[in-house]
Amino acid sequence: MSEVPSQIVQKLRNASNILVLTHVYPDGDALGSQLAFGEILSALGKKFFLFGEEKVSYIYDFLPGCEVLGADLPDLAEFDCVVALDCGDCHRLGRKMAEVLAVTPFIMIDHHAGNKLFGDMHWVDSKRASTGEMVYDLAIALGAEISYAAAFCLYTAIVSDTGSFKYSSTTAGTFRVAGELVARGVMPSEVAGKLFDNFTVNRLRLLRMVLDSLELHDKARIAFISVTAEMFNETGATQADTESFINYPRSLSSVNVAVFFKESANNIISVSLRSKGTECDVAEIAAGFGGGGHRNAAGFKMPGAKIAEVKTRLLKVLLTD
Amino acid sequence: MSEVPSQIVQKLRNASNILVLTHVYPDGDALGSQLAFGEILSALGKKFFLFGEEKVSYIYDFLPGCEVLGADLPDLAEFDCVVALDCGDCHRLGRKMAEVLAVTPFIMIDHHAGNKLFGDMHWVDSKRASTGEMVYDLAIALGAEISYAAAFCLYTAIVSDTGSFKYSSTTAGTFRVAGELVARGVMPSEVAGKLFDNFTVNRLRLLRMVLDSLELHDKARIAFISVTAEMFNETGATQADTESFINYPRSLSSVNVAVFFKESANNIISVSLRSKGTECDVAEIAAGFGGGGHRNAAGFKMPGAKIAEVKTRLLKVLLTD
Repeated sequence: MSEVPSQIVQKLRNASNILVLTHVYPDGDALGSQLAFGEILSALGKKFFLFGEEKVSYIYDFLPGCEVLGADLPDLAEFDCVVALDCGDCHRLGRKMAEVLAVTPFIMIDHHAGNKLFGDMHWVDSKRASTGEMVYDLAIALGAEISYAAAFCLYTAIVSDTGSFKYSSTTAGTFRVAGELVARGVMPSEVAGKLFDNFTVNRLRLLRMVLDSLELHDKARIAFISVTAEMFNETGATQADTESFINYPRSLSSVNVAVFFKESANNIISVSLRSKGTECDVAEIAAGFGGGGHRNAAGFKMPGAKIAEVKTRLLKVLLTD
Repeated sequence: MSEVPSQIVQKLRNASNILVLTHVYPDGDALGSQLAFGEILSALGKKFFLFGEEKVSYIYDFLPGCEVLGADLPDLAEFDCVVALDCGDCHRLGRKMAEVLAVTPFIMIDHHAGNKLFGDMHWVDSKRASTGEMVYDLAIALGAEISYAAAFCLYTAIVSDTGSFKYSSTTAGTFRVAGELVARGVMPSEVAGKLFDNFTVNRLRLLRMVLDSLELHDKARIAFISVTAEMFNETGATQADTESFINYPRSLSSVNVAVFFKESANNIISVSLRSKGTECDVAEIAAGFGGGGHRNAAGFKMPGAKIAEVKTRLLKVLLTD
């Protein structure tokens, strides 16, 4: 586990106006880290702008401060530096990528393995379970007061990116930071309730249908589930509602590889793959289809295809793997 | 949060042969605490007997040391003391209750609110999220080495009794102990995998059917799900497989009260109730049907009834509550 680089601490101490970015389609770690960092900069008496080009997903809109995210970038000459949080690839910075990459110094703080190391100053630590964990240590290094809202956002970031301390990325350091945030007043059951007890009736209906689509192959070592455009129509559920559905086939004790096929309205098949342990590297399999990811979690997209044909092609690869 | 009472530490230091008990139908905290305590006593060079009158449920039989649990009590005169872990009521000690209660000193270590305080020496701390958390502090107070197996069992106890750090009982102290156990080599993803990714295909099929039974009442504030004897027959799933199914209707954001109706082979309807927050005290409602429990989690049984009639009677009570 690395410590906060002193040059980043120094740079932030001297900066008076900071642009804070994260990746597009931000998840709990991205948003939690970004909003907490805004609180931390505010406690230090600094000016800042939190950039977000999309409306926050309903799954995360309970995070305090969502409303301060802005899509209209101010004049970039105003900023002393840029901080990109939880973004391992500059192409995930969104539509303003070219403009923001031109600002110097460009500071990157991230925990993704395989980070592309863009920008001028990097703190990349793939041993960290979340960027939120790193932002906490940065706040301590900066001597900033951590408000309740900042603690709440950072705790949410950690819980969100570790599946509530279940993923293999969870370390003793993760528990240290979580404990310190709880000591600052965050209530674990409140965050868990907001993150996990947020099902709509439409979403539960969709889950029911998706579970009905379960197919097992290779003596139940491979499990497929799928969602069709028709299921979205029938239930009124949205793409965002399918989050975490892949965990159901994955939770079968016999299963090594779980796959979720999603049909979008624009005729693209999105495929999410999960594997357990070291037997099957799904990143390698996804790469064969033009996608990518990690050893145990990867994905790819197939435009203009049908679910049935993607299933057949993928199953062939999985069975010969 | 209380510290380990010094008289208990003193007594255990001086004892050379110790009988270790927990409650009947032991869950992860009960078994994890008991097995870890055996490891701790072993590290201190003490003799001990871990009493367990039933076969361990398949959900917990991954715990190292399950095989040393014994149902045949040795001569009780051999023991210097008894330690009862995670047992808030002497009636939950099982068939040998009368005999074991006669041994002195009888030391009780537990975290249940409303503990009945039987025995001679008590360490009861309802602010602790699990008995496992207390056994860890006891091991430290005893100066015992904590083996990997002990750490694994204690971590499982904690995760099991907090729903992976989601329940309101989770404190900064819970995270402190979890972090120290992980620093001793326990892998969070391994324990989570064993505890939560243990679905059989039959169980997933049953879940699908149970989700199909969802009924919403009172503007989706009340959710009912049910499992019939026929569903068990059709899927080959067992009563134990329905564990945690109540969390699905509970996870609906609109829902205040979730109810799970289970039809057993012997024609008994078991009803589990869950509520959120302080609006509805389900213990009170369950008491009206001869059952009991806590404010947010309670239940009752109805022999010789049909699910449909229990639903109608309960709904009436819930709507006038």
